[in-house]
Amino acid sequence: MKQRLLTPGPTPVPEETLLELAKPMIFHRTAEFRALLGEVLADLQKIFVTKHAIVPLTSSGTGALEAALANSVPAGAKVICLIAGRFGERWKNIAKAFNIESINVTVPYGQAVQPDQLAKALGDHPDATAVCATLSETSTGVGHDIAAFGKLVATTPALFIVDSISGLGAMECRTDDWQIDMNCTGSQKALMMPPGLAFLSVSDKAWTAIDKNPNPRTFYFDLRKARKNLETNDTPYTPAHTLIRAMRVSLKKILAEGIENIWARQARYAAGARAGFQALGLELFPAQPNTALTVVKMPANIDSTVLLGKLEKQYGLKLANGQDTLKGKIIRLAHMGYIDQFDILAAIAGVELVLSEMGQPIEIGAGVAAAQRVFARC
Amino acid sequence: MKQRLLTPGPTPVPEETLLELAKPMIFHRTAEFRALLGEVLADLQKIFVTKHAIVPLTSSGTGALEAALANSVPAGAKVICLIAGRFGERWKNIAKAFNIESINVTVPYGQAVQPDQLAKALGDHPDATAVCATLSETSTGVGHDIAAFGKLVATTPALFIVDSISGLGAMECRTDDWQIDMNCTGSQKALMMPPGLAFLSVSDKAWTAIDKNPNPRTFYFDLRKARKNLETNDTPYTPAHTLIRAMRVSLKKILAEGIENIWARQARYAAGARAGFQALGLELFPAQPNTALTVVKMPANIDSTVLLGKLEKQYGLKLANGQDTLKGKIIRLAHMGYIDQFDILAAIAGVELVLSEMGQPIEIGAGVAAAQRVFARC
Repeated sequence: MKQRLLTPGPTPVPEETLLELAKPMIFHRTAEFRALLGEVLADLQKIFVTKHAIVPLTSSGTGALEAALANSVPAGAKVICLIAGRFGERWKNIAKAFNIESINVTVPYGQAVQPDQLAKALGDHPDATAVCATLSETSTGVGHDIAAFGKLVATTPALFIVDSISGLGAMECRTDDWQIDMNCTGSQKALMMPPGLAFLSVSDKAWTAIDKNPNPRTFYFDLRKARKNLETNDTPYTPAHTLIRAMRVSLKKILAEGIENIWARQARYAAGARAGFQALGLELFPAQPNTALTVVKMPANIDSTVLLGKLEKQYGLKLANGQDTLKGKIIRLAHMGYIDQFDILAAIAGVELVLSEMGQPIEIGAGVAAAQRVFARC
Repeated sequence: MKQRLLTPGPTPVPEETLLELAKPMIFHRTAEFRALLGEVLADLQKIFVTKHAIVPLTSSGTGALEAALANSVPAGAKVICLIAGRFGERWKNIAKAFNIESINVTVPYGQAVQPDQLAKALGDHPDATAVCATLSETSTGVGHDIAAFGKLVATTPALFIVDSISGLGAMECRTDDWQIDMNCTGSQKALMMPPGLAFLSVSDKAWTAIDKNPNPRTFYFDLRKARKNLETNDTPYTPAHTLIRAMRVSLKKILAEGIENIWARQARYAAGARAGFQALGLELFPAQPNTALTVVKMPANIDSTVLLGKLEKQYGLKLANGQDTLKGKIIRLAHMGYIDQFDILAAIAGVELVLSEMGQPIEIGAGVAAAQRVFARC
């Protein structure tokens, strides 16, 4: 049976990138590899929409989040964490691990933190050294208004640190225009790569904070050392260099289409997926959805764990369940990276088949047709 | 021109492992992937020769070193670092980053730290919380008597933490018998894998220290969280799961031969490489060489940077130079992992050709023949 991976990370990897991963090993302390790393980081700058340095890390995306906080925020300092789900909660947990006080602006799962909530928190806590936000809250499908947040934070001394792991490369994200000081992402979402690499951009304001920090509490993720090595397109420790070599291929594919074109295409995909599920009577879970994935609620009598199990076993369609308290209650369909409109139709068609098998009164084909009509219109 | 990668990391990867890397993406929060990770970790236990848990990390080997210290040694505590080269120095630098006091037992490059030096340091510093050593000091080719160190440390409350990154899987290393509390390694040396994964074993004594540590200074490398996830063969964050899937193939290859057989074969390779270079009048650099790589000095009139450049450009043979102050003075030939005796002959034959071209009075074939005689004898 043909398998379709439609989870919000890892996502499918293009065949030409996979073949690059199978090439023989190389040594990495060479002019050739330095040129390759330089090219990959320059390509990433176009995707981040930044003129600032991008630091490559060999880690999951969480490593980039840790690098951002451990380098720029001293112990005992205060940060504001904007929390709309599991990934927002991660900011709070990282802060705790590093003895950083966390002011938590929390909304219920499915809701998005609003700019006025951040404005209030900044007013209440003028001593905050950073604001930590999430572009795409993968656990709920919420997207945040990072541009609005950035405007607010830029008027303060605080750094604006964003987890864009599942959003960057799929939804609009303009690092410099939106005044993001540290933008953190991972390889395995919209960047069409396996997991293993993380990246973060660092603004001048962030470098100043890093240089002032009396005691960055990390060795492996030391950004000052990384900055020094980047002068020669080098890394402090052996990087996952075969992933970097393969990433060159995926990034060329992204840039051949153009990042703004991809944002627009993803918005069409999201509109189609939403219309498709809604035509089946399924409600969107996020109040303010993002365009990297679509998350819908299950009807009261349907357990999403059962539905997803059938989708996978009977039809080879792998979508994601909710996490923790949302398990069984929602399904999450990714449409970022190397997933196209026909994969989305396949997912909706599969959901139709399984809902019908489970006795749900739906009209077979209604969801697919609704999605198609959106795709045809745009 | 055919390329031969003979550097002490990254090392060549078997073709069947490379092909595994090109397989389509999978989702990792599944029973299938948990079974696969469990199998890989069980196989690694046989290579570590340990019954204790092995924690997988998505990072370079340095990440495992950081994980060991940041989790088990509180700020302000004291560790003894045994330093015989750049990788021994890394222990000291990690300690510094985490505000750990470092008692440095240092020998000149090319020498090995001796057990009586450790005994004296332990006597002078009964309050040391850990001893940090290096199995194979890749920068000089020195091997340490980890078994003897382990006996000394085991009589004290200190943890015995070993960087076995370039040695494990090539030279004898018995984690439990030698009383190593935390044994740290990386994927890209003798384990026949690309870089990107690191592993460390954790003894009961080490877990006790970790659990007592009031403030582990890491989130990404939090071993307590990793331990909890390992109960279900899971990882706290998205691992480099396509590397783990491919590693299964390399580990099966290692275990099919048997780790003790590999140690013996590596010892033959080392004996052959040493005899080969010595027959060309080249002296061994390390006073106490290990069997994962062979490091030899250049004659006074030969710059190793020139020799290595010619080896690579003219013959496709990639050996490693010395680092920092040793650059230009030594050459380093790996014979670990997926490198065999005929690759070693190729390297020696290439060195013969280049030395001859550079006007060195050597007998063409003498080095290769000397190595062959060793291989024939064993």
